[in-house]
Amino acid sequence: MLYDGFTTMDALGPAEALSRVREGKQKCYEIEYFSVAGGLAGSSTGAKIWTRKLDEMVKFDVLLVPGGFAVRKFAYEGEFIAILGELARRHDHVIAVCTGSVLLAKTGLLDGMEATSNKLSWQWATSEALNVRWIRAARWCVSGKFYTSSGVSAGIDAALGFIADMYGPAEAQRIARAMEYVWGSDKNAELF
Amino acid sequence: MLYDGFTTMDALGPAEALSRVREGKQKCYEIEYFSVAGGLAGSSTGAKIWTRKLDEMVKFDVLLVPGGFAVRKFAYEGEFIAILGELARRHDHVIAVCTGSVLLAKTGLLDGMEATSNKLSWQWATSEALNVRWIRAARWCVSGKFYTSSGVSAGIDAALGFIADMYGPAEAQRIARAMEYVWGSDKNAELF
Repeated sequence: MLYDGFTTMDALGPAEALSRVREGKQKCYEIEYFSVAGGLAGSSTGAKIWTRKLDEMVKFDVLLVPGGFAVRKFAYEGEFIAILGELARRHDHVIAVCTGSVLLAKTGLLDGMEATSNKLSWQWATSEALNVRWIRAARWCVSGKFYTSSGVSAGIDAALGFIADMYGPAEAQRIARAMEYVWGSDKNAELF
Repeated sequence: MLYDGFTTMDALGPAEALSRVREGKQKCYEIEYFSVAGGLAGSSTGAKIWTRKLDEMVKFDVLLVPGGFAVRKFAYEGEFIAILGELARRHDHVIAVCTGSVLLAKTGLLDGMEATSNKLSWQWATSEALNVRWIRAARWCVSGKFYTSSGVSAGIDAALGFIADMYGPAEAQRIARAMEYVWGSDKNAELF
């Protein structure tokens, strides 16, 4: 789920990992890009990604929620948070990257659960949702169906962690190798 | 420079790093996306990026050339390679990621120079340009104005290497930290 002002790699790093999951020769995920209004969603790097309108969104296996500078606006927009909450409830798995976890926390769905977020925005992020059990020393957290990650690149680690949980660690390692990505596979590591 | 069938992170990982370079409070790079025909360029993850038509491209500071499965088509298209060669000659700096280095090699501009490429496509990549001094044990190579990187994520390391060379290692480290990215800062490291 994209919006104007998302961080490019928060969304597209995990997408790169998820797009490579296979069972035998079969790709497991087709990735589609949505935004509330549809059309082009602008990102931190100036890349504009074409999105479908959110009301065309049926149920997918995984909902990915990136962070970005615009989180500091959308976190206070009730309608946006309501839409996100409805989407998150409907999906079997949710991965929120960086300050995307603040958006997810605002829905109330993380109340009482462990979650993490961007370490450079830690004070702000954690003060925005006091009922979440924020874990600073985590690269990513798993709380039931909700995966939340630390900043930007940690989203790739969390996506690989999700892949390991669903398809086994060998598949996650295969994908990390194909991406020539040094996977921080310990979700409890405090790297930054 | 994008094209249908580029690898998402090859382009957008380095873009994420470059977009964050600052001198004081001033951003150093505005990133724009181009393709030969303009319009939407589709990538490995299904993300379609809006691009300007290449003939609107004046000179930028850095030309970024991603790899992707479509390289195995474009590497043999003379017109595409001629356009790329003209662009690469015009720019002060060129960063080619993954099999993007094969496209760049096909222009002849890397002849006699050290370069590297994706390790999983190594045999194919190196057999396509026999006058290049291909270096297997490299995360990235610097040959004059040409930076070439190993696969996918190595593009981020190369971009941070470029930033370190231009703006100093402290700026590269600051950006790696902001991206919570564990930078493989040794370009001669053979990680995969």
